[in-house]
Amino acid sequence: MAEAATRNTYLDENRTRFIEQLRQWLAIPSISTLSEHKGDVAKAADWARDRLLAIGFPEVKTIPTKGHPLVYAEWPVDDKQPTLLIYGHYDVQPVDPIDEWHTPPFEPTIRDGNIYCRGASDDKAQVMLVLAALEAWVEVDGALPINIKILLEGEEEAGGASVTKYVQDNPELLQADAALICDTHMVHPEQPSLVTSLRGIIYTEITVFGAKTDLHSGSYGGVAPNPIHALCILLSRLKGEDGVIQIPELAAAITSPSATEKRFFKEDPLNIEKALCTEMGVTELVGEKEYPPLERLGARPTLEIHGIRGGFTAEGAKTVIPATATAKVSLRLPPDLEPNKVFSWLEKAVRHNMPAGHRVQLTNLHSGKGFYIHPDSHSIQAAAKALEAVYGVPPVFMREGGSIPIAALFDTILKTPVVLMGFGLPDDTIHAPNEKFSLDQFNKGMKTVAEFLGRLAG
Amino acid sequence: MAEAATRNTYLDENRTRFIEQLRQWLAIPSISTLSEHKGDVAKAADWARDRLLAIGFPEVKTIPTKGHPLVYAEWPVDDKQPTLLIYGHYDVQPVDPIDEWHTPPFEPTIRDGNIYCRGASDDKAQVMLVLAALEAWVEVDGALPINIKILLEGEEEAGGASVTKYVQDNPELLQADAALICDTHMVHPEQPSLVTSLRGIIYTEITVFGAKTDLHSGSYGGVAPNPIHALCILLSRLKGEDGVIQIPELAAAITSPSATEKRFFKEDPLNIEKALCTEMGVTELVGEKEYPPLERLGARPTLEIHGIRGGFTAEGAKTVIPATATAKVSLRLPPDLEPNKVFSWLEKAVRHNMPAGHRVQLTNLHSGKGFYIHPDSHSIQAAAKALEAVYGVPPVFMREGGSIPIAALFDTILKTPVVLMGFGLPDDTIHAPNEKFSLDQFNKGMKTVAEFLGRLAG
Repeated sequence: MAEAATRNTYLDENRTRFIEQLRQWLAIPSISTLSEHKGDVAKAADWARDRLLAIGFPEVKTIPTKGHPLVYAEWPVDDKQPTLLIYGHYDVQPVDPIDEWHTPPFEPTIRDGNIYCRGASDDKAQVMLVLAALEAWVEVDGALPINIKILLEGEEEAGGASVTKYVQDNPELLQADAALICDTHMVHPEQPSLVTSLRGIIYTEITVFGAKTDLHSGSYGGVAPNPIHALCILLSRLKGEDGVIQIPELAAAITSPSATEKRFFKEDPLNIEKALCTEMGVTELVGEKEYPPLERLGARPTLEIHGIRGGFTAEGAKTVIPATATAKVSLRLPPDLEPNKVFSWLEKAVRHNMPAGHRVQLTNLHSGKGFYIHPDSHSIQAAAKALEAVYGVPPVFMREGGSIPIAALFDTILKTPVVLMGFGLPDDTIHAPNEKFSLDQFNKGMKTVAEFLGRLAG
Repeated sequence: MAEAATRNTYLDENRTRFIEQLRQWLAIPSISTLSEHKGDVAKAADWARDRLLAIGFPEVKTIPTKGHPLVYAEWPVDDKQPTLLIYGHYDVQPVDPIDEWHTPPFEPTIRDGNIYCRGASDDKAQVMLVLAALEAWVEVDGALPINIKILLEGEEEAGGASVTKYVQDNPELLQADAALICDTHMVHPEQPSLVTSLRGIIYTEITVFGAKTDLHSGSYGGVAPNPIHALCILLSRLKGEDGVIQIPELAAAITSPSATEKRFFKEDPLNIEKALCTEMGVTELVGEKEYPPLERLGARPTLEIHGIRGGFTAEGAKTVIPATATAKVSLRLPPDLEPNKVFSWLEKAVRHNMPAGHRVQLTNLHSGKGFYIHPDSHSIQAAAKALEAVYGVPPVFMREGGSIPIAALFDTILKTPVVLMGFGLPDDTIHAPNEKFSLDQFNKGMKTVAEFLGRLAG
């Protein structure tokens, strides 16, 4: 095993090339939720396959699915060494509202030490820095230090049905001693962090129906059902201004975090609350006042409306009462909650809170369970030491509010400890206009992953 | 003066030609609120001008405005006869949702005794039947029985700023003994009705702002402002499920209808409540339970949400918390209420009910005052007798829930009694897909207006 410094030198010397490769990958608009981009998603998969072959993986395949393809690669080096399963995704979110992007969403642009592009932070640059670390071991040491399996998917932003099925169908193939997912962010550029918990999610669509056709408000206003109004009432009843979700079964099912975590949430030693206000450009945070913001972010359930649409929304005025209105609503769930159970509770709450004179339809678009790993586990400790070696300070352990269903899946199906070590930053604006990834984080991320691989080796 | 039967024969014999002319006019997509249709609106104005010239009006002009043109025509016949000012509009509503139309919105199609087209009932066929009645007098009697002034506008669906200015600037030119507006509907094909009251309106846009950019709900959900949620709470506070508008000044300003009207509202002798349920395809009406449906429709204020938009509304799922959300909201007002005053009350209520952590912006897109005329007035009585002559039964006097700001304007600026005699039917689905006008109503409407002109003559 060469000195870490030798691999780091290799990574520094080849950094420009890695970023050039990343730009090629980013330029492919692999939006998985829009059917017109199906070809682009396949192209992004092929790109990843070719990159893995170029690094030297002896076995690389693109696996067709009912949705977008999976990319799977294996490089067994030594039976006595542990096996690490690496996961990433090459699909990206849609780009709207497109007019808020400063440069076109699929023209990777470097400015102020960042690379701007849809998918930069979520998740292409993070996959790319792992590939760079693998390449460094192969080129500098002549071989990987441990056995590696890589599984990349193209439906992470679209529910991940295909990868779920693949993991469920192939638990032996994917068996590993640890899993690594680089798809989260650190709390601060100088403060590395490791995610020990992810929230689960259910993502639903609620449609309200009123009259059989659109109506003129002058002729029917005052007696006609108005689905927009009914939807507003319903949504304001499901969660009020106080931020409390009005689903009794959910409230009863939530377990309290540990005393240590409670203290961390309350003390907010990293001053995350202030950072959040700055990132959002607001002076106050909203939500449940009786819980500290950090607890609301990581350990409490949330109910958020992601989109709403109904009636006339173009330029000017139209005095219509529409026949339907629709909202997209998700619930983020503490790790121990079962999404399907929560969906049935939500369904009950929706029926209970629906204003009279309207019909409602609730659809479960996708769901995923949460995840929790103890900070003392072996692979988390290896990751912590790798981060400290590169960043100079030990990481903090965080609960992340987002949902990565694959982490729960690895946990429950493969029984593999999952290391969530991400190099995104809080201001990367993932899922929003002007998504970016820090090039300095790219640099440190490559080195940290290379270090982590070495520390896992027996 | 010829017998009414002679004019009626003329109208019957020329009916096919009138409908052919109407089809030409309807085929022009004169949507006034969409700037790309500006040329079409002008084309529809020119069409009306040419028709008036063809009838024989000695003075016809198209008047340019800041918005869409006005068409004005005069035919003075005898100083000793009264003057009737006829108003109509040649602009139409937008057509969305376009996929709900059974035939293209601007391809006039006759089926089941109706002509289907955007603008059929509102208001082109109703203007066209007036023009046919005028032509019958000219052709059969050699002259109109009274002095006629005609004013047609192209911004009725867009706030009517230009016609408002023109009326305010030209009260002497437009001076008349009565005004006729055919832009309303009868309660039933066999029960003629006259509208003695119209509600006023304010049409507003409410935009809520949260964070400075769209956010990822996983990273910010639980502490981030959500403008969609705030907008839902606001709108549910402005009017609850009970249908009561929560604007204290408004509640205090409403005067009660007369005892006769109250009885009519309560008894509902025409069984309008049942007809409304059938038209809307619902089993129950919504709104303020303590007022009968007819009173809610015609004499109570309404608050309706016409459109709402925010966040991600396309196919699939996107876990975004958007930076803004917008709704279009109108209030219909009993005739005596001052729209500007009500807007300031609404503004206060919006600020008062806005959830913390969000900014709100309220814009007054347009407004118009309501209107009331006593059933015993001379011109209303002439219209009532004309309707009875054609339909065989006397009309009922109705309060119409819609708003025709021009009626209030004629009333307040010109001090002219306004006859609102419309030939639309309740199921015309104006402002909605598959708008239509009954050809039988067209036939009877022409004859009624011809009869009305004769009855106004001294």
